[in-house]
Amino acid sequence: MQQLLEKMVFSVFKSPEDIPPHDSAVINIPGSKIAFTTDSYVIHPLFFPGGDIGSLAINGTVNDLAMSGARPLYLSLGFIIEEGLPMETLWRVIQSLKKAADIANINVVTGDTKVVDRGKGDGIFINTAGVGIVEHNQTISPHIVQPGDAILISGDIGRHGISIMAVREGLELETTIESDCTPLHDIVLEMLNQGVEIHCLRDLTRGGLASALNEIAASAGVTINIKEKAIAVREDVQGACEILGFDPLYVANEGRFVAFIPQNSVNQALEILKSFSQDASVIGEVTGTGTGMGLVTLESKIGSQRIVDMLSGEQLPRIC
Amino acid sequence: MQQLLEKMVFSVFKSPEDIPPHDSAVINIPGSKIAFTTDSYVIHPLFFPGGDIGSLAINGTVNDLAMSGARPLYLSLGFIIEEGLPMETLWRVIQSLKKAADIANINVVTGDTKVVDRGKGDGIFINTAGVGIVEHNQTISPHIVQPGDAILISGDIGRHGISIMAVREGLELETTIESDCTPLHDIVLEMLNQGVEIHCLRDLTRGGLASALNEIAASAGVTINIKEKAIAVREDVQGACEILGFDPLYVANEGRFVAFIPQNSVNQALEILKSFSQDASVIGEVTGTGTGMGLVTLESKIGSQRIVDMLSGEQLPRIC
Repeated sequence: MQQLLEKMVFSVFKSPEDIPPHDSAVINIPGSKIAFTTDSYVIHPLFFPGGDIGSLAINGTVNDLAMSGARPLYLSLGFIIEEGLPMETLWRVIQSLKKAADIANINVVTGDTKVVDRGKGDGIFINTAGVGIVEHNQTISPHIVQPGDAILISGDIGRHGISIMAVREGLELETTIESDCTPLHDIVLEMLNQGVEIHCLRDLTRGGLASALNEIAASAGVTINIKEKAIAVREDVQGACEILGFDPLYVANEGRFVAFIPQNSVNQALEILKSFSQDASVIGEVTGTGTGMGLVTLESKIGSQRIVDMLSGEQLPRIC
Repeated sequence: MQQLLEKMVFSVFKSPEDIPPHDSAVINIPGSKIAFTTDSYVIHPLFFPGGDIGSLAINGTVNDLAMSGARPLYLSLGFIIEEGLPMETLWRVIQSLKKAADIANINVVTGDTKVVDRGKGDGIFINTAGVGIVEHNQTISPHIVQPGDAILISGDIGRHGISIMAVREGLELETTIESDCTPLHDIVLEMLNQGVEIHCLRDLTRGGLASALNEIAASAGVTINIKEKAIAVREDVQGACEILGFDPLYVANEGRFVAFIPQNSVNQALEILKSFSQDASVIGEVTGTGTGMGLVTLESKIGSQRIVDMLSGEQLPRIC
């Protein structure tokens, strides 16, 4: 439903700039190129291991800016608070927002608070919009992805989604699985500063790795092949996925992204990614233009091939 | 409660730029000065005479940009939709958003849609954030308001709030009172283009004229005197206010603003305002620095003086 809505809603507003979904818009202001993006956060529960709605609302929007190669500068903050929310809860969220904004080095410069009657909201919803500056001259877009591009991932997958689900389901695991929620702009800016050529970036939020790759394959009209054994999934995450019946490829992350990198820049990019996480790796490549329709296939650990579909419907609602 | 929250929340994030509340932040980007603002819209009911949540979400944010003298350029759009919202309702809202954006000549360039479970929202909430460009070199801020400044209003007051209340209360009036919801940037830009010197601008939303004047008086540390007979209130609005027990000075508007103008620019400013609405007028002036605490007084139609207090608590919840 969410996907349908987004198509319906944003086709009406499609601007001449033709924004790809989930990314920030890159717009020209006299003298500058800026990136602009927004996200609302309705996550349930508000607090979870490794994060909360506050850190998520900062990092989610920072990461959308980062995916266009922008340096995040300014954030707006909009609260919709349900009457009766304990002040202690609100205060905890505000402290978390503040801490995450400081860590990401972004200024919250404007905001708004609305209160709705009890039963007309759910504790607290947060919207953040972000403005960043684009200081590089590359075009970072699915439209320039081409056969031969390597696909790199910035770390292990599945922790954010599983950390939420474990709390929701009251799952008793041997270890605590913490969300990977973190800002990603430092890694991206490091790649740009070192002259890495980047074709496309996408953070792996709702719908996980599988959805991100399918979206890019469809936009670019290419076929993609990835290798299961190259994708890091922590053992406890894998175990929880099996208990809960999830495929880690579709589980949401909040601090992971894929980069489509031409061969001449792969080693340099991988080295930078590995300096942030040892689990970063090359997981596959763009294999061809196919029928122009987009297709993602996976070589399993035992060597068989299967199609990685776009998920229809959401595996987990209110995950961000 | 809303006022308390805003103080609490945004004091944590107060940036070096020291943003005045309800205005857009003016920020420097290399090569440009831009204005940035956000608002969430939770109005109930979604549709009302003269507007709906869609036109409100566009014009409210456009007007926040206009109040810093910026030319509105780009908007983001975030939906929080309650499961079960009829598609017909959503479609009506989207059409209204599109129409209002076209009228205001602003591009919606990025967006997000979240769906929450039935009973965890209220039909639809909309957040918009706006980016505008500041092309003038004036400082428009309550901090430069000074004794002698004339206070101009852009038209009659009270229609937005009363239009909502009439629907909510099922009030049968002889005439239909339509919201004044409209974009204001053309008027402001016309003043700037014609060289009008402007000290401060404020749109008269939640809390109405009385709250806007009290906020500015407090920020500037000045005393203000206004004349009741100079303030246009339509007869049917006045009548509805009497029935409902409201003072039109405190009723919300969505297409009205006050301008603090030094004497040398008053005639020019008034002429421009009158070209947009015959009800525009000079309603009073800044009378002194007082105790530096801010005070607003009103000369009533029969010539008596009274203090116009800051409203404690909200006269009407969910008015925007």
